Amino acid sequence: DPKLKIFALNSNKPLAEKIAKAVGVQLGKSSITRFSDGEIQINIEESIRGDDIYLVQSTSDPVNDNLMELLIMIDALRRASANTINAVIPYYGYARQDRKTRSREPITAKLVANMLERAGVDRVLALDLHAAQIQGFFDIPVDHLMGAPLLADYFLSNHLEEDAVVVSPDHGGVTRARKLAEFLHAPIAIIDKRRPRPNVAEIMNIIGNVDGKRAIIIDDMIDTAGTITLAAQALKDAGATEVYACATHAVLSGPATKRLNDSVIKQLVVTDSINIPEDKRIDKMVQVSVGNLIGDAIKRVHENRPVSSLFNNRYT
Amino acid sequence: DPKLKIFALNSNKPLAEKIAKAVGVQLGKSSITRFSDGEIQINIEESIRGDDIYLVQSTSDPVNDNLMELLIMIDALRRASANTINAVIPYYGYARQDRKTRSREPITAKLVANMLERAGVDRVLALDLHAAQIQGFFDIPVDHLMGAPLLADYFLSNHLEEDAVVVSPDHGGVTRARKLAEFLHAPIAIIDKRRPRPNVAEIMNIIGNVDGKRAIIIDDMIDTAGTITLAAQALKDAGATEVYACATHAVLSGPATKRLNDSVIKQLVVTDSINIPEDKRIDKMVQVSVGNLIGDAIKRVHENRPVSSLFNNRYT
Ligand SMILES: Nc1ncnc2c1ncn2[C@@H]1O[C@H](COP(=O)(O)O)[C@@H](O)[C@H]1O
Ligand SMILES: Nc1ncnc2c1ncn2[C@@H]1O[C@H](COP(=O)(O)O)[C@@H](O)[C@H]1O
Repeated sequence: DPKLKIFALNSNKPLAEKIAKAVGVQLGKSSITRFSDGEIQINIEESIRGDDIYLVQSTSDPVNDNLMELLIMIDALRRASANTINAVIPYYGYARQDRKTRSREPITAKLVANMLERAGVDRVLALDLHAAQIQGFFDIPVDHLMGAPLLADYFLSNHLEEDAVVVSPDHGGVTRARKLAEFLHAPIAIIDKRRPRPNVAEIMNIIGNVDGKRAIIIDDMIDTAGTITLAAQALKDAGATEVYACATHAVLSGPATKRLNDSVIKQLVVTDSINIPEDKRIDKMVQVSVGNLIGDAIKRVHENRPVSSLFNNRYT
Repeated sequence: DPKLKIFALNSNKPLAEKIAKAVGVQLGKSSITRFSDGEIQINIEESIRGDDIYLVQSTSDPVNDNLMELLIMIDALRRASANTINAVIPYYGYARQDRKTRSREPITAKLVANMLERAGVDRVLALDLHAAQIQGFFDIPVDHLMGAPLLADYFLSNHLEEDAVVVSPDHGGVTRARKLAEFLHAPIAIIDKRRPRPNVAEIMNIIGNVDGKRAIIIDDMIDTAGTITLAAQALKDAGATEVYACATHAVLSGPATKRLNDSVIKQLVVTDSINIPEDKRIDKMVQVSVGNLIGDAIKRVHENRPVSSLFNNRYT
């Protein structure tokens, strides 16, 4: 039987450690360093011939370096006769470039899918893709996990579901909000906004009742935190007693940390799909780990059991 | 007839300007910037439908960013219905990872070729690839230009060919040295060295006579300058009156600038295949431009004339 091996690249070693622990294996021995001129150098320090390899890499900032690490490692594993190569991508970068919004735009999320397939990946395990359509960019199996149940668990175990209303910061996120609302047995509301240009958010009006309630905003990612902090203020203005926010992916670029700190958001719950550097961690931020979730999914894939049965479809 | 258009990405705009001038066109209007989280954003600001596009990009440091710019731009051009997409890659990064030297190594130079083809490039124009075999990594046409004639012109026009001996710093570079020697009507010598590990060079003995002569070392690239500065010292020790060095690609990473400054090398002649930042330019460095050479090659490709006929095969 092919042996299950997990290798970590450089973007998120703490999560890779947690995943390996959940699976009950040690991380494979490898080092990914740089030559003097910045080119990536890979050393795989154990035989992997005939093994089933799970490569953990989030293509977060620095996205191009992290993506190239992944592609080069796939190339090396294929040439070293791995049985299967499974890319575990907790955060899939370039996911927002998933369609042409203007003339002559690239569709980089599709380009990345093509690159991964061409490099020789057999299967992809992803978490909360910005758009579910990205699964269709691949011709190989994609297991798509969901972070909402883990975020729900946090609110439930802290008894924050009472008087709660789950808020989607835009129309595209309603399905996600409804899922969280189901777990919390709460109603939903939607923020109807226009975004004048990238990284700039403008809040419009709130559809649904938030007056006198605890608002819990859910999004797939928090990037510059413009959307979510303005949404939080709008909810307060509309009578919400307190505002929580949660998201699977803590991108946290540019002014995000300062905006969150200065905002009316009481607590922000995110996962560890992206490794958060020390200087971006703030008091009101809580991290829940997707390590067990991904570890369980890897075990299922390896044992040829459907990932979608994970906890009665709770996570997929 | 399809229109010839040249677009510059970010790695080497000064060279792209020279190429456009040699061809007699303006650079196409585009901007390649970053989103807040570091993801590449491309704007092509003019129609390119039905046009023949030449994209100028060296995949030099930061190699992963420059490569992704190139791939994403190719994706955007293809989706915008370009007639042909030609990648003009004056410096082809990852070229030294062109074979497995140990177990479980990637062959990144081939991976890059696969990525470029998958993204949708129709033709590649390259200059002094580290190994000529890299042409065979592509299934599309690759025009391979040579910098040696331009370097030779510099030595000839400064009357430095008298009493000269052309030196190859290793056995792999003998063909290149012989080419330069032909132009200068000079003999050749070879340095017989072992390299204990990457970026570390060790000089052995000199095969051929350099005593009382002006030694001109030629290499394809100067990276950390370890090889070439030790070679220069060995040549001095063997009786060379003065030592010149030349190379097509000025990679100049890590200690290169200091090593060159401190070395016995009198003058270093390089091309502008890689844009050299201000702080890496030193007095003894001379740059000759490959702008006209590449411009002429582009014109020939566009007019469907063989590039190999360029100046009677002098440059290919
Ligand atoms: N890394 C990024 N940062 C900010 N905006 C982006 C990024 N990538 C793509 N976009 C833009 O985000 C929009 C798509 O986001 P969405 O409507 O949320 O799917 C498009 O207008 C993209 O141009
Ligand atoms: N960017 C780089 N910097 C230094 N050495 C490299 C780089 N890329 C590959 N190498 C190593 O250079 C050697 C090949 O160089 P060469 O023998 O000159 O073709 C191999 O041992 C590679 O591992």
